[in-house]
Amino acid sequence: MPFFTLTDTDGDARAGRLHTPHGDAPTPAFMPVATQGSVKALDSADLQNIGATIVLANTYHLYLRPGVDIVDDLGGLHGFMRWDGATLTDSGGFQGFSLEHLRRITEDAIIFKSHIDGSEHTFSPEAAIQHQQRLGADIIMPLDICASADSDEDTVAVAVDKTNRWLLRCVETHARADQRLFGIVQGGLFPELRRKSAQFITGVGFPGYSIGGLSVGESKRAMYDTVSLTAPMLPTDAPRYLMGVGSPEDLVECVARGIDMFDCVLPTRIARNGSLFVKTGRLNITAARCKRQYAPIEEGCDCYTCRTFSAAYVHHLFRAKELLAYRLATIHNLRFILRLMEEMRAAIIAGEFADYRREFHSRFVPPDERTRRDQKQKWLASFNRG
Amino acid sequence: MPFFTLTDTDGDARAGRLHTPHGDAPTPAFMPVATQGSVKALDSADLQNIGATIVLANTYHLYLRPGVDIVDDLGGLHGFMRWDGATLTDSGGFQGFSLEHLRRITEDAIIFKSHIDGSEHTFSPEAAIQHQQRLGADIIMPLDICASADSDEDTVAVAVDKTNRWLLRCVETHARADQRLFGIVQGGLFPELRRKSAQFITGVGFPGYSIGGLSVGESKRAMYDTVSLTAPMLPTDAPRYLMGVGSPEDLVECVARGIDMFDCVLPTRIARNGSLFVKTGRLNITAARCKRQYAPIEEGCDCYTCRTFSAAYVHHLFRAKELLAYRLATIHNLRFILRLMEEMRAAIIAGEFADYRREFHSRFVPPDERTRRDQKQKWLASFNRG
Repeated sequence: MPFFTLTDTDGDARAGRLHTPHGDAPTPAFMPVATQGSVKALDSADLQNIGATIVLANTYHLYLRPGVDIVDDLGGLHGFMRWDGATLTDSGGFQGFSLEHLRRITEDAIIFKSHIDGSEHTFSPEAAIQHQQRLGADIIMPLDICASADSDEDTVAVAVDKTNRWLLRCVETHARADQRLFGIVQGGLFPELRRKSAQFITGVGFPGYSIGGLSVGESKRAMYDTVSLTAPMLPTDAPRYLMGVGSPEDLVECVARGIDMFDCVLPTRIARNGSLFVKTGRLNITAARCKRQYAPIEEGCDCYTCRTFSAAYVHHLFRAKELLAYRLATIHNLRFILRLMEEMRAAIIAGEFADYRREFHSRFVPPDERTRRDQKQKWLASFNRG
Repeated sequence: MPFFTLTDTDGDARAGRLHTPHGDAPTPAFMPVATQGSVKALDSADLQNIGATIVLANTYHLYLRPGVDIVDDLGGLHGFMRWDGATLTDSGGFQGFSLEHLRRITEDAIIFKSHIDGSEHTFSPEAAIQHQQRLGADIIMPLDICASADSDEDTVAVAVDKTNRWLLRCVETHARADQRLFGIVQGGLFPELRRKSAQFITGVGFPGYSIGGLSVGESKRAMYDTVSLTAPMLPTDAPRYLMGVGSPEDLVECVARGIDMFDCVLPTRIARNGSLFVKTGRLNITAARCKRQYAPIEEGCDCYTCRTFSAAYVHHLFRAKELLAYRLATIHNLRFILRLMEEMRAAIIAGEFADYRREFHSRFVPPDERTRRDQKQKWLASFNRG
């Protein structure tokens, strides 16, 4: 059985299937984020019920707490969080960006100062792989350097070179045949660096390819352009994973550009703030106009929350700060995203993706660019308050 | 069909069955508390899965938010929280005690100052019943005055007299034949006042009788003695509901004294602090010794949490402040309590309750009296911080 089967294409959009030791994940796939071994407010039964087939966890966070030894002792991530589906771990490279005030990068490693207790931790390429081998995810990532959106070309070039040197050390360390190690294309918003990075990585050859260093503060246009440029540099017979991207509009646009896999905390993070996806955009469930909305959050939504409760009840739970609010809202937003992926996949298979994309944009209004960037900056800043 | 069937007795302990428009509740019964229309961290499917048959909600809290009109519009408490089992609402009388710095009591009513926005709200006996009729619970309570544990006999006597006058106004107002209105025995720790209250209330005649004004700061011994004294004053063919009591040791001791129904936030409140019931007492799941407890919280426990996750995972969720921690801990503690009720009921039916009680005390060690009272005082004080 190959790791990835590409079954259908429609324009640049692709439908396929990842085959992992923990089941198949149809693509395009969205991976809910279980940062610390739990998708916030949900358990694994919830994830299964909303139709998740693959989830992501963060190596650096689990390394700090509870420690990779404990996760390993419990049978890896699957046993730890009792999730039988497919899993992917990142390498700690993104935390080298998001926790930038708590780390320094040497030739050899990213050296972190723990946001929990201030202790120092060295993430070398070897260590990043070793930790992921103990966490036991089906798909793992090499340690990379993720440059911020405002970095100049020289800075990014240095980061790409170091990422490439580190990649070979990751390949050397990677020993578990049941875990697929992806390559990561970096290069910021610079076409030439993306090309150089992609050439190097495809030269080494991997079962899948990540595109990193996007959705880190750049404009949507710059992000889409970089995806448009980078995706065709990657082999057609391997999955392409766009790291950290997952708003509905970005998912549609990046599937249109040939991406197969995504992860993002946005759907779950905004859910906990009461911002819920509906056909037309985002609904603020805490708004006064939802107080007497006796219909579900969205008529026709097949999520557990909408099939069971009124919007007025969810509004009340948010106003009353009841813990149940966060679970019900998260279920709704994740189901919205997973249904979006299912619909895109069906449209690709039917050869109707262009229509789907047009119909989606005709009704779904994202927050404006400025609001979006402000929120993103605020979120990124929150990491460094540690 | 009568409202209550007493099927078995064993010493003073009783097993029976409440028959409500929303199904039967076997007794002795523990009612999880859905203060604001949600048992904190759980939804109604969770409640059903842990074996709850009847839940309690607080009229005053729901009156303030979202408002009884909204709950009514959604089909009452059952439709609002989508709970198909039996329900009971209190009258607001307990908040007249717990929110004592935010209310005054006149001849006619309890007048509250909202802890949400400072607005003033008059709970007359009539209003308390009208609100409960709109909330639509199967069992409702009359407005009563709950005196604190350190009140002198004259103060409590005045409260009992007023409670009795109010009771007649509640009876007069009560109009929904599908809702059973209970009487409430007050009288603090004073035998003569308990007797007077019980005589008055049984003279009026109700389908069920509550014992109020206990577990408000008095010693366990005083509470047990008052229950021993009061229960026999009530008719044998009606259920006896001890309000606000629900630690494992209190449940066993008060079932032994002839109580049929209980409610308490203790099991859910301490769960959210990481204090979990086990056969031998309480386990602090956040303690370092649980870090590598790869077994469940308790071997053999039939709750979802223990059947699914290791104690180490739950420990991690608490340490990492993951929202899932609160749900898993609450499920465990409530299932422990509901299983305790099921076991006591089976022991009563088998005529082995004395053995069960002995066995329970031989293994279950509650926190010492001083710790318990400190915690209670702290909890009661928390109400008045607004």
